[in-house]
Order: sequence, then C-alpha cells, then structure tokens
Amino acid sequence: MIVRISPKGSMEQLSQLEVARLKQNAQSELYQLYRNCSLAVLASGIKCDNSQKLFNQFEGFKINVLQKERGIKIELINPPTAAFVDGKIIASIQEHLFSVLRDIIYLNDIIYLNDKFAQLDHIDLTHSDHITNSVFDILRNAHAMPLFDPNIVVCWGGHSINNTEFQYTKAVGHELGLRELDICTGCGPGAMEGPMKGATVGHAKQQVNHARYIGLTEPNIIAAEPPNHIVNELVILPDIEKRLEAFVRLGHGFIIFPGGAGTTEELLYLLGILLHKDNQDLPFPLILTGPKESADYFTHVDAFIGATLGKEAQDKYQIIIDNPAEVAMIQKEGMETIKKFRKKIGDSYQYHWTLKINPEFQFPFQPTHENMAKLDLHFQSDKAKLAANLRQAFSGIVAGNVKMETVNSIEKQGPFQLKGDPKLMILMDTLLSAFVEQQRMKLAGTLYVPCYDITHGH
Amino acid sequence: MIVRISPKGSMEQLSQLEVARLKQNAQSELYQLYRNCSLAVLASGIKCDNSQKLFNQFEGFKINVLQKERGIKIELINPPTAAFVDGKIIASIQEHLFSVLRDIIYLNDIIYLNDKFAQLDHIDLTHSDHITNSVFDILRNAHAMPLFDPNIVVCWGGHSINNTEFQYTKAVGHELGLRELDICTGCGPGAMEGPMKGATVGHAKQQVNHARYIGLTEPNIIAAEPPNHIVNELVILPDIEKRLEAFVRLGHGFIIFPGGAGTTEELLYLLGILLHKDNQDLPFPLILTGPKESADYFTHVDAFIGATLGKEAQDKYQIIIDNPAEVAMIQKEGMETIKKFRKKIGDSYQYHWTLKINPEFQFPFQPTHENMAKLDLHFQSDKAKLAANLRQAFSGIVAGNVKMETVNSIEKQGPFQLKGDPKLMILMDTLLSAFVEQQRMKLAGTLYVPCYDITHGH
Amino acid sequence: MIVRISPKGSMEQLSQLEVARLKQNAQSELYQLYRNCSLAVLASGIKCDNSQKLFNQFEGFKINVLQKERGIKIELINPPTAAFVDGKIIASIQEHLFSVLRDIIYLNDIIYLNDKFAQLDHIDLTHSDHITNSVFDILRNAHAMPLFDPNIVVCWGGHSINNTEFQYTKAVGHELGLRELDICTGCGPGAMEGPMKGATVGHAKQQVNHARYIGLTEPNIIAAEPPNHIVNELVILPDIEKRLEAFVRLGHGFIIFPGGAGTTEELLYLLGILLHKDNQDLPFPLILTGPKESADYFTHVDAFIGATLGKEAQDKYQIIIDNPAEVAMIQKEGMETIKKFRKKIGDSYQYHWTLKINPEFQFPFQPTHENMAKLDLHFQSDKAKLAANLRQAFSGIVAGNVKMETVNSIEKQGPFQLKGDPKLMILMDTLLSAFVEQQRMKLAGTLYVPCYDITHGH
Amino acid sequence: MIVRISPKGSMEQLSQLEVARLKQNAQSELYQLYRNCSLAVLASGIKCDNSQKLFNQFEGFKINVLQKERGIKIELINPPTAAFVDGKIIASIQEHLFSVLRDIIYLNDIIYLNDKFAQLDHIDLTHSDHITNSVFDILRNAHAMPLFDPNIVVCWGGHSINNTEFQYTKAVGHELGLRELDICTGCGPGAMEGPMKGATVGHAKQQVNHARYIGLTEPNIIAAEPPNHIVNELVILPDIEKRLEAFVRLGHGFIIFPGGAGTTEELLYLLGILLHKDNQDLPFPLILTGPKESADYFTHVDAFIGATLGKEAQDKYQIIIDNPAEVAMIQKEGMETIKKFRKKIGDSYQYHWTLKINPEFQFPFQPTHENMAKLDLHFQSDKAKLAANLRQAFSGIVAGNVKMETVNSIEKQGPFQLKGDPKLMILMDTLLSAFVEQQRMKLAGTLYVPCYDITHGH
Repeated sequence: MIVRISPKGSMEQLSQLEVARLKQNAQSELYQLYRNCSLAVLASGIKCDNSQKLFNQFEGFKINVLQKERGIKIELINPPTAAFVDGKIIASIQEHLFSVLRDIIYLNDIIYLNDKFAQLDHIDLTHSDHITNSVFDILRNAHAMPLFDPNIVVCWGGHSINNTEFQYTKAVGHELGLRELDICTGCGPGAMEGPMKGATVGHAKQQVNHARYIGLTEPNIIAAEPPNHIVNELVILPDIEKRLEAFVRLGHGFIIFPGGAGTTEELLYLLGILLHKDNQDLPFPLILTGPKESADYFTHVDAFIGATLGKEAQDKYQIIIDNPAEVAMIQKEGMETIKKFRKKIGDSYQYHWTLKINPEFQFPFQPTHENMAKLDLHFQSDKAKLAANLRQAFSGIVAGNVKMETVNSIEKQGPFQLKGDPKLMILMDTLLSAFVEQQRMKLAGTLYVPCYDITHGH
Repeated sequence: MIVRISPKGSMEQLSQLEVARLKQNAQSELYQLYRNCSLAVLASGIKCDNSQKLFNQFEGFKINVLQKERGIKIELINPPTAAFVDGKIIASIQEHLFSVLRDIIYLNDIIYLNDKFAQLDHIDLTHSDHITNSVFDILRNAHAMPLFDPNIVVCWGGHSINNTEFQYTKAVGHELGLRELDICTGCGPGAMEGPMKGATVGHAKQQVNHARYIGLTEPNIIAAEPPNHIVNELVILPDIEKRLEAFVRLGHGFIIFPGGAGTTEELLYLLGILLHKDNQDLPFPLILTGPKESADYFTHVDAFIGATLGKEAQDKYQIIIDNPAEVAMIQKEGMETIKKFRKKIGDSYQYHWTLKINPEFQFPFQPTHENMAKLDLHFQSDKAKLAANLRQAFSGIVAGNVKMETVNSIEKQGPFQLKGDPKLMILMDTLLSAFVEQQRMKLAGTLYVPCYDITHGH
Repeated sequence: MIVRISPKGSMEQLSQLEVARLKQNAQSELYQLYRNCSLAVLASGIKCDNSQKLFNQFEGFKINVLQKERGIKIELINPPTAAFVDGKIIASIQEHLFSVLRDIIYLNDIIYLNDKFAQLDHIDLTHSDHITNSVFDILRNAHAMPLFDPNIVVCWGGHSINNTEFQYTKAVGHELGLRELDICTGCGPGAMEGPMKGATVGHAKQQVNHARYIGLTEPNIIAAEPPNHIVNELVILPDIEKRLEAFVRLGHGFIIFPGGAGTTEELLYLLGILLHKDNQDLPFPLILTGPKESADYFTHVDAFIGATLGKEAQDKYQIIIDNPAEVAMIQKEGMETIKKFRKKIGDSYQYHWTLKINPEFQFPFQPTHENMAKLDLHFQSDKAKLAANLRQAFSGIVAGNVKMETVNSIEKQGPFQLKGDPKLMILMDTLLSAFVEQQRMKLAGTLYVPCYDITHGH
Repeated sequence: MIVRISPKGSMEQLSQLEVARLKQNAQSELYQLYRNCSLAVLASGIKCDNSQKLFNQFEGFKINVLQKERGIKIELINPPTAAFVDGKIIASIQEHLFSVLRDIIYLNDIIYLNDKFAQLDHIDLTHSDHITNSVFDILRNAHAMPLFDPNIVVCWGGHSINNTEFQYTKAVGHELGLRELDICTGCGPGAMEGPMKGATVGHAKQQVNHARYIGLTEPNIIAAEPPNHIVNELVILPDIEKRLEAFVRLGHGFIIFPGGAGTTEELLYLLGILLHKDNQDLPFPLILTGPKESADYFTHVDAFIGATLGKEAQDKYQIIIDNPAEVAMIQKEGMETIKKFRKKIGDSYQYHWTLKINPEFQFPFQPTHENMAKLDLHFQSDKAKLAANLRQAFSGIVAGNVKMETVNSIEKQGPFQLKGDPKLMILMDTLLSAFVEQQRMKLAGTLYVPCYDITHGH
C-alpha cells in the first residue's frame, strides 16, 4: 500500500538540499529518526505502549519526501491502516506528519547553529542561555507562539490513570474550555488526553473555532506516548530537558493530576525552579487536583513535599479536590495576573524569558547505577538544590521502570542503591510504597517489583 | 440583575422601526413571543422539559433591544444564571439569542409578504409553492445555506432515550464527524444532542474548524426542547410543518434513532413523501439505526411499515444495527450521489426544490377528538395517502401525550377514539403497546395511561 | 454571444418565486428595469452619456436568471464586449451585475412592505420615518453597513470637470486613501471617479486590503452615469431623494468639488438640512475644495450662499483651495469627533438616524413649468425653507438641461419662468451666468441655451 | 523625535540572542548594515538617488530593536519625516522595516549554515547548488512563495526613463493587473514603479484584494533604489547575483522596458541562461516592449543581439511595440503553459529549480581595470559563453557610470580598455553610442563622459 499525503499545516516548501538529506537510506540516522517518529504518529490510534513491539509490527513501513509542482508530498509505504478513515488519512495525523518533518529538519540545523552563534557573537553567553534560545527557536519555527494573550494551561499527570480520574480530567478540561483556555500536554493518553477531550466540548459551546491543543514531545517518547488525535499543534523537542523547558516557558498556568513517579519528578522540577530566589515574585498558577477518590494521593504527595522542601515549597501550589470549576476559575484569573505582570516587566506573553532555570534542570541526568548511588539525598538549606537531587532520583526510578536500557542494566546489576539521610529515606520509601499500593507504578494488573533499594542506614 | 449582550453571529443592525416593534409591552404578542423564545434559550442549561414550570420560575425575566453606536444590544433583566460562566454569557447562548431576534423579526414580516406576492405576481402559484418559498426565505435570511457541497445529515430520534442508546448516537456522530459531515437535528437533548456531541470530537480529529451543528425548532417546542449548547446555527421556523419541510429540503442524508410516537410520526412523514411518484428516483439516504440492545425496536417498526405501507415503503430505508461506521460511510457515499444527481437535473445543493411535498404534509393537522375520530384508517392502494393518515394519527397521540391543550381536552372528553380496518387497528395497537412496554411514551419511571382507544371492530 | 456569469459578492441564492418574477418578458416592467440597469453596468466602459443612444445600440441585449446546483447564474445574450478582458468579465462589472439583481429584487419588495408595516404597527409613524427606515433597509440588504468606525467620505462634484480639476480630485483621493478613509460617490466619471482612483494608490501604500469604494445610484441615472470600475460596492436606491438621503445618513464626511447646477442643488440640499434647528450641534465635516485655477468658482458659490442663506449657512462649510492634504486631515479629524459624538448620544456609527430631514427634502419635486413658476423665491427668515425652494429651482434647471422629458416640454412651452424677489433673481442670474461662462452647464464645446428665464421684476 | 513601530507583516518574535546581535553599536557591522537598510526604507519618499548624500543628511538616525510583551518593536530615533502621514508611519514603510529586520537576521545566519551543510551531508554538491538553495531559503523565510499558481511577471527597465515610457509601463501594468497577474521588480522608481502603479488600478477593477507587488533588492542598491510605496513584499538578497537568481527562479514571465547599459546587462544575463542547452525546452515568456516613440531603442538592441548571439538568441524573446494588451495577453497565456510544463516534469510552481544557471552567472564579476581588459570579447560558437562575457563588459560599464568605488578608480586610471574582435567592438560601440545619444546613460540634462575606450584594432 502506497499513499501520498499533501501538507496540512505550516510546512509547505522544502529546498532540494533538505529533501536530499531525508532520502530513504538504511545508514542515515536522520532518515531513521524521521521514519520512526512518523511511524509513531501514524500508529497513534493503536493501543500499544511498547515501542519495540510497534516497530516490529510495522517493519515494512517506509517514508519518502517528494518534491512536486505544488510543494512537497509525503509518500507512505505500508503505513498502519488505523491512520485512515475510508482510505483517507485523518487530518490530525496528516498535520502531525508534517510537524514531524518540520521539526526533524529544524532539529538537524539547530545543533550546528548554536555552536556557530556562540563563536560569532564573541559575547559572554552561558550555555544555559543558548539552550533557552534554542527552545525558543524550535517553538517559533513550529509557529507555536502566535500573538495571543496569556492563555495556555499545561496539564500533567499519569498516562494510565483509572477511569474515575480520567473522567475528572475531562471535567476539568470542559471547564477550561468554557473559559476559552488552550490546553498543552505531553501528547499521550490518560491525563494528557482527558483535558483536551473535555475542552473540545467546552470550546464548541463557546464557539471557539481556533482552540489550541498543543502536544510537546521528544523523539524517544513519541512512540510510547503518541499524540492523541485532538492535538492540533505537535512539536518535537530534541530531549526531555528541552521539552520540560518548553512546557514552563510556553505555558502560563499549570495543573497536575494524579500520576506516578514521573509526575512526582515533574512536580519536583517545577518546585525546584520556583524555589529559585529570582523567581519568587513571578505569578505562576499551579494547582494539584483530582476527584475525591484520589484525595489520599495528594495527601501523600503534599506530606512528602512539606517534610522535604518545607512550607515554602508547599506555598507554591494549591491542592483542590473534586472541583473542576474552581480549578478553571483560578487558572483564568491567573491569566490576567500574568498579563499585567509581564506587561509591567516587559516580558513576552508568548515565552517566559524571565523565569530563571538553573543548569542542573537543563542538562540531562543519566540514570546509571553509579550516578544514582552518588546522589546527595540529605536535607539542606538550599531547597532548590534538594529538589534537583530528588528529581534526579525519581527520574532514575522512572527510567528503571520503563526505559529499556535502564531496565536491562537493573536486571544485570540489581536494583539501584539509594542512600542518604535516614529520615529522608523513610519519606521517599513511604511515598513510593503508596504509589505501589495505588498501582501507579505499572499498568493495572501487573505485579510491581521495585527497581530500587532504599538504604535507611547512614 | 441586568446584563447587556452584544451580537455574536449574523445579525448586527436593526432599523428603528424593527426595534420599536419589539418594545417591551405586556399587550404585544410579538414581544411575548420574543421574550419566551429568548427565555427558552437562556434556560437551556436547566434540566426541565415542562415549559409552564420554566416560565413560572422566571416570571421576572424581561428583555429589551437597545440601539447603540455599534449596532444593537440585548438587555436581559433577571436572566437564568445557568446561561453564564463566571458572569459571562456562554457564546452559543449569546448567538442563539440573536438568532431568535433575527427570526422573530423575519417571521413577523414573512406572513405579510406571502399574501402580497401572490397578488403581485398575478401568476398561478399554488399555495403549496408559497410555503416552500417561505421556508427558503427563512433559511436564507438565517444564512443557513452557505454554498457548500451536499454535507448535511439530519438526525432524528427520541429526546429521552436510554444511556446505551445515547452513547450509540454519540458513536454515530463521531463517525459522521470523522467523515466531515455536518449535523442537523431538532435542537434538544437525547438523540438530538448525542450525534452533535460525538461529531464535535470527530471534527476536532479532522481539524474541521467550521463544522455546522444546525438546530431547527419552532416557537411552541423551543421551551420544551431548548437548543443544546453545541448547536451553532439555530433557526426558528413558524410551525411544525414548516420545520419538517426545512429538515427535508435543507438536509441531504437522514438517520433515525429509536424514539416513541413522535419518531414514528417523522418516519411516516418521510415515507409519505418518498412514496410520491415524482420522488421515486431522487437519491435519499435514509437509515434506521441503533445499538444491538435496541434491535427489537426496529423489528417492530419495520414490521408495522411492511404490513401497512408495504415493501415499496420498506425499500426506502435501510436498518443497520450496531455499526456506526457503516452508517456514516453510507451517508458519505450518499453525498456524492446527491451531488451528481442535483448537478444533472440542475437542482440546488442547498435546498431540495425538486422534492415534491403534497399539501397534506404541509398543512397542520389539528388533533381534536373529532378530527381523530374522522381519520380514514383503512388499507388503500395509495400508500402515500395512507402514510399521511397514519402520520396524523401518531401526531394526535403525541399531542395527547404532551401538548397541554390536548391533554386537557382528553381529561374532559376521555381518550381519542381511533377506528378503522380491524387488521390495521391491531397493527397500531401492537406497535404502540411495544412502545409503552419499552417506556418510550413517557419519561422513565412514570406510569403511562394511553390517550387513545383503538376500536378493533369495524 | 451568450455568456453565463457566476455571482461575485453578496448575493448567491434566489428562491424560485424571485427567479420567476424576473423572467424575460417584454410586458414585465420589472424585467425591463432589471435589463436596463444591467445593460448600463455592462456598458460602463463605453464613453457615452446619452442613455437613449446606448439602449439603441444594444437593442439585442437580453438577460436571464438561471437557477443552478450551486446557486444562481446570470445569462447574458449579446452583451457589450467592453465588459470583458480576454473573454472574461471584469470582476467589478460581475459584482455590479449581482448588485443590480439584489437591489431590483429588494426594491420590488420594499414598496409593499412599507405600506404593510404602517397598518401592522398601528403606531403613529410619520411617512418621513418610513422613508428613512426604507433607505436603511435597502442599505442593510446591500451589506453596506459593516460594523466599522466612522470612515466614509462622500465626494460630490461635476461629472464633466476639466483635467486640472480631475487631477485635483485624484490628489484629494490619494490623501484620503493615505489616511485610510473610504470613498462614497455617485458612481460616475469626473469628480465621482477621481477621488476613488487617487484613493486606490493611497490605500495600496497603506496596505488597506478591503477599502470601500461605494457608489450610490438610482435607476434613472445609472445609464448616464454608470458605475466606474473602481466602485466595489454598488447600491441602487429607488429615486433621487432616497439616494440623497442614503448619502447623508451613510456618509460621515463630505467634500464638494466644482460642478454645475447639479452640484449647487446638492449643496443647497445639505445646507437646507444642516440649517434645521435639530441639526445645529451635529458634527458634520463639509469642505468645498478645488485647485487654485477653480478658486473663482467657489468665490461665486460662496457669495451666492452668503447673500441668500446668510453667514449661518456659510458657517456650515469650509472652503479650501489647492490643499489636498489639509482637506484629508480635516476629514480624518472629523471622524474622531463624529465617533465621540455618536457614542455619547447613542446614535449608530453606520447610519445617521439623528440627522433630521424635513419631508420637503424627502419628497420628489416634479419640475413642470407650473411647479417652477409657482416656486416661492423670496428672502425669508426660515433659511432652511429658502434653501429647500432654491434647491427645487436648481433641480428644475438640471432637469431642463439633461432630462429627456423636461427638455422636450421646454422645446414645446419655452423656458421655465422663474419669478421672485428682484434681488434674489439677480443673484441667481449672476451665479448661473458664471456657470455658463465657465462651461459647467454643458459638456465642453457645445453652446448652452438656458432653459429658464429669470424675471427680475416683481 | 523617537517613534516606536509595531510589526506589520510576517515577523513578530525574536529571540533574546537575535535582539542582542542587533544592539546599536558603532563597531558592529551587522548593526550598521541594519541601520542603513532601514534608513533607505524610511527615506524612500525623498527624491534622491545619491546614497552618500542621503546618509549624510540623516546622520543622527538610530534604530533599536525592543522586546516587549507582545513581541518586538522597532524604535526609530530621528527618522525622516517623509515616512509619516499625520505622524503615523505609512503602512508599507512599516512593513518594509520589518522585512529588513527579518532579512538582515536571516542573512547573518545563512552564511554559516551553507558551510556547515556541505560538511554535514558528505555529499557531492557543487557550490552552485548551494547558492541556489540559499536563494530558496531566503525567499522561503520571507514567505515569498505562497502556494499559488504561476502568476508572477518580472518587469525590468531603466530607473530614469522619460515620461512617455513611464506612462507606457503604467499601461502595461494596468493590463497585467486586469489579468490578475502579480508584479515583481527591482524596487525602485521608473520602470520598476510604473508597472506596479498601473497594476494597482487593474487589480482594483478585478477586485483582487491580495495582489502581490514584490520588490527584490540588495544592501548596496537599496539606498539608491529604495522600495516604492506600492511594494508590499520586500526581500533583501545578499548580493546582485543572488538577486538576479531570485528574479529568474521566482518569476514566471519577463518583460523588459527600455533602459541603459544595466538593462542590456540584464537581457544578456537572461539570454546567457536561456541559451544553455538544458534550458532549451523550458517555457519562458520574455517580451521586450515600449511605446512607439521607443521603437528605435529596440531596433538597436535587437540588431546587436542578432549580430553577436545570433538568431537563436533572438528567438528567445518577442519585441512588441505600443501594445500593452498584447503584452499582457501573452504573459497570461504563458502562465498556463508554465503550469502545464512544470506539472509534467514535477518542478515547483514557486521556484524554478529546473532552470540551469552556470556558475559564471552566479559568481560576482569584479569590474577592475585588469578584469575588464582581460575580457574575452570574440565571436565564438558557444553563444552562452559569449553572452556571459558581454554581460560582464556591460556590468563593468554600469559600475563605471554609477558605483562610487569604480568611478573613483576610473578617475585615477582613466577609462576601461575594452579589446576584442574588431567587428564585435564596432557593434558594442554603436549600441553604446545610441544609448548616449538617447540620454540613457545618465540622468537627463547631464553630459555623459564614457568610462570606457573601445579598441577596434586587434
């Protein structure tokens, strides 16, 4: 089966050089990256969160970029049929395919640009600034920053939440949609899809014709969490840290639904940034919310934050149980506050330049046994520092749960050894045990074997 | 509480004369009509299908049309709060308010125009043609006929269907939306809302930004079946018969979900028209569909049609059980057939002029005891005539179930007496008993006392 | 030669009744009116200001309205070839053809509506109000009142001005265009085309993509002054008086270039209205302007106004010689004043309801010998009344110069006899003689024989 | 005087790095380039074709890029007042300012990208391909390639033509506009402005709301030939050769009006390319045209081409005297031919990839005395090669006439010495003498002293 797809969305013209670089070629890393991201998008209707299995199933899939009289076309050879309705590709998948193409080509360029610019400017830019500018460049190239007023609510949470929690994320999305707010998530199912689905109906009631459902992803995660079909703006960032930075600079309000270790990692990332002294006064609406059945979850998380990062950190968020309308109202009011604040200080409505992000939140953490064992898990007065270390610990646990490479190394070398202050160790142990009990560490129905040992002694 | 609303949608300017005519005035019929329709729209979020109760609850509601520098505004005094989100009116209600204003003003004019035109033209137009032209004028004035290709699927069915059936109407709507088809219904809840709700998500996946969710209603029904909030084009026709004509001339494809006596009336209306010899060759996709749990319902209905109107009538529709995708595919294919056919014969894509509708389907039937008793309910070779008579019988039963005036007259004079061919009487009795048993005649949980006696003797 | 034209612009759908009414039919007045207006539009590229000659030349021209699957088409039989470029109709003519169709159909209706509404409303509306509302209805039906801020400058002046004056009208138009003002004129050549042509380039420099070039005309004048090709909104009013009312209610600022008796009539119309006591405080930017070569013209006109209507009338306008930028700046500033004023009093930005127009300016004056002889041409304290009488006198002279019927009756009965106050008679004589001398009464090169005798005695 | 300008057009967001690079800084070459191009745009209303004088007059002019909450703003310090109407910047200048900003930033990047890509791809791309791709990148970044059908007519000719010729270029533009063709020129006055001005009225008649008036320029020429105010798409290419390549790849049809040595250079450029064997079959509508008063000019040019490049070259163009409509008709028909041809071979409608341009037409020619003396000016069988050499000769003469640096070196070292085949030398001499006689080498009224000696001997 061979299908040719015309562009839908923002990319329409490629140069001959760009097309040449994407030529189908078993040896070309760029082609493989492009092919795999495209396959992930095409397979997004298929229920399967195991990338390897997916890639095996569609081994015969190939993709070509063709230059035609009216611009480029994409040729798909043996694509998954789930991407089509009556033989016609679903429009959102069609657009996502061209978003992939746009971003893959751009990511290829940006790496070299960065180096060059530093030399060119002969000015004292820290590498941190370069990362921030690169994230900006990628988002701009994706037309992800139209000149609207502050309006984007980022929704985070687990991708395999239970049905009560899923219905709740839809209800929150509905209330956000009724207030004409746009939604930005990590692209996948669960708490990433629910708010978008709910917002769709809310936006319809408010006759918002050009609502934005932004999905931010990265090449390693797109296959496991493919963009749901409501996403109408897909952007692929080069790695997890740039994706996180894109979330916090592009988004205006933040909502965290229940999740597992990954969601805790994200919360720690946010708190670590917000605890930076330069960020003290920035308006930053952050709400933790879920249905009343999930109240316990937030009690555990809040207790952990209180005991480790203290009241100062707890003051950065509100917990709201079972009240979608209130969540949405607070976010809506937050938009006004942000608008006034940024206008006053002259920061952009579209990209939160002022937010200070320390390099330890920008550079990737490699979750090896060695790095995990070396983590400094002791109480300390620099709460931002502690948040950074804790984030790395949870990041390692997430990898140990799901990332193929890390899982393999745990099979060989045994669980990670986490050491630190005994009191802190007990706090972590308690929180993680609660997640295990609530079946948040693995898909429901499977037995969870922890990938870590927490050493309570000194 | 006083709120002023600016226009959203197609009406923006009124003349001073038009504004004067709508002046708040207890004696003015036009003002009362305008006020009540507006109230129905504003109360659409409130669960209540009893108009009288609704009107009592909002006795203090008043409405004024104001002329301002940028066009008109509507002033609402004591409106239902359910129409607002955080003090701001919901956009769809805002638009519906102005649709009401537009149509009330226009309906006021059209009555006089019709008479005048007949005299003016000195040409031999039957009154039937005048009705057809009036319906066209109203739809055109409402901008309900943009120059698109055939694309509108009319969905009919009960307003109080069970949850399984409701989910099914959503699933069908989703598949229609995936095929980029627009939805037209009678405005209210149940089978009128489900297809729109499902289509919203389907359209989002296909990135259809300007999908149409058309609601056709009339002044006497708008309070009982207020436009759901997904409706983005609301048109008020002057009476039930013109509303039915608007459905069949504006719509291209037709789907009937389970319902009660009212839905049967609608099916008989359609079949009566389609059996007209002039309409034999018109492509007219008509599908009866429901979930497998509702298969029995269609068995009964089909048996009744077969036994009364014969195979010729049965050939006019397909019954599809539990297959939303197939329903949508057939409708989609039907659009192509209609397009080719109308192009060939030079009929409009927007308004089905060619469809022949006999006057007995255009003039209203008054369901008095006398008229019901006089109905000619015998088998006859003119199947279209029989369909017209049966439709009037079911129309009377619907009125006897829900229309205040008719209910009162039954309380005084006892049930309607339906007489006719004994075999035909048994068929009707069987069908109606099945509806009673399936709780389709009244809202679930209430005991149904039939408003009719079927006399099986001669 | 047979050509079929698709709609461009606002009309796309007609009912079968409307199409039937326009059927080609030698006996049908409506068809003849429609045919002749359409022919005038089609012949607009041909230099010819003699309607009769034009109609003779294209005797074989016929027009049909066809109903097709995508709406109506217009079929032209033997149209003037000047309307086409390489066999394709010029877009502005195409749109004008559909404007004619739209307005002819509407004018046919409005006559009857007016009568009906009066009976219907049982309220005490003077006939004057009805006229004002009808003009509104026609403009609204033509979509001539989009919701913009005050922006329309009406330009009046002769249709056969000399080249220096024509270049000056272009220069003024250019400056108006640079200030993003829209232009409204009487449709034809000369001072009606120049400002539009100049504005086209001004708008291009300001990248105004949707500038409005509004042409207001009426059935008896459209053939003599066909819409120039820059007009992008053409509206046909039913008669001269409604056309004048449309100008003053739709327009915001007013510019009068040099002209003849007709332009004097228009000035007297404006001054007569502005002298009404209810209109004293209305902001109404009115400028008389021309190149320095035409300074004399304005000296004569101003002297006449001063001597007849007094300083009060002179205060209503400014005379600006040879300064296009200043003219445009004053108009631009006037828009702000009008905006604030109308906002304060709640009058529409689109239609100047508040402006009081007395019935003597709304009802047509029939220029018979008897009516002309009866005119009360004496000084009087009611300057508005005097202005009305003078306007009628000049109106009669215009008719005597160009209107076929009036010209004929003068040939038979001799010139009009104008009598009145000797001093006033001398003033009129002086002004008219200056016009004759400046060759403003007839096209250059033809000898002018006055159509009037001014009796200086009592 | 300090003014802040908001974006109009396609650029709205800059990164902090990009803003930093443009910081006002006397030492920064990039800032100086940016400032001077911006000044040229702002001074475009001032009649002055001497860049040095212009820069001296506005020595105090400075420009800053500011980052604000809604994107960037440009701050102008002491800008020329001619850029403003009533204190408000003219929209086209406003857009041109942001085009300059967009292109300066991009040109800065592109230089480095090119080098990098060559290394990156490890593929055998000639440098010629890189140039072609860079030109594409610049045009794409400027949004100069919307997905329209072939529609762009490039108009070339002198910038100081006489009034008869100027009126003729307007008449041709008017006919092109009537045929809904877009215009692309070199930005400046004369034959570059006339076709745009005429097209403006033609487009208005055809109600073309989004007509394109594309101006292509380069940093060294923008001050001498600033974009006229009708240009609504301005693109700055890095140098003359890339600008020429942009013309021939972006444009579809070509018209050459009378001009001097520069216009001859352009004609030789085109013929040199069209004579390449790979370009034999490409449809390429090329018309030389002027009013009947300029017929002689074309006789001389045609004779020169015939005698040097032969009939094969003469067959590449048509000469049309005094027939604007025919010129436009041929261009319009050419668009259809191009459309069909590119569709057949799969080349883009937007960018003429297939056109083969040899490196000698891509690399700049430095007009030193040495290079001029070395030129191989002999007849030869490779006509494309001869065209290239002749182009360089004329290019040198243009530089000797107007380019400050070259003029100076001629003052010091005397005129260029052109040597070659005696017959060829006589042909050049004859043509150039005709230009001198027709006052095409210098502005009217100044005496022309040739910058070259043609040596007729061997």
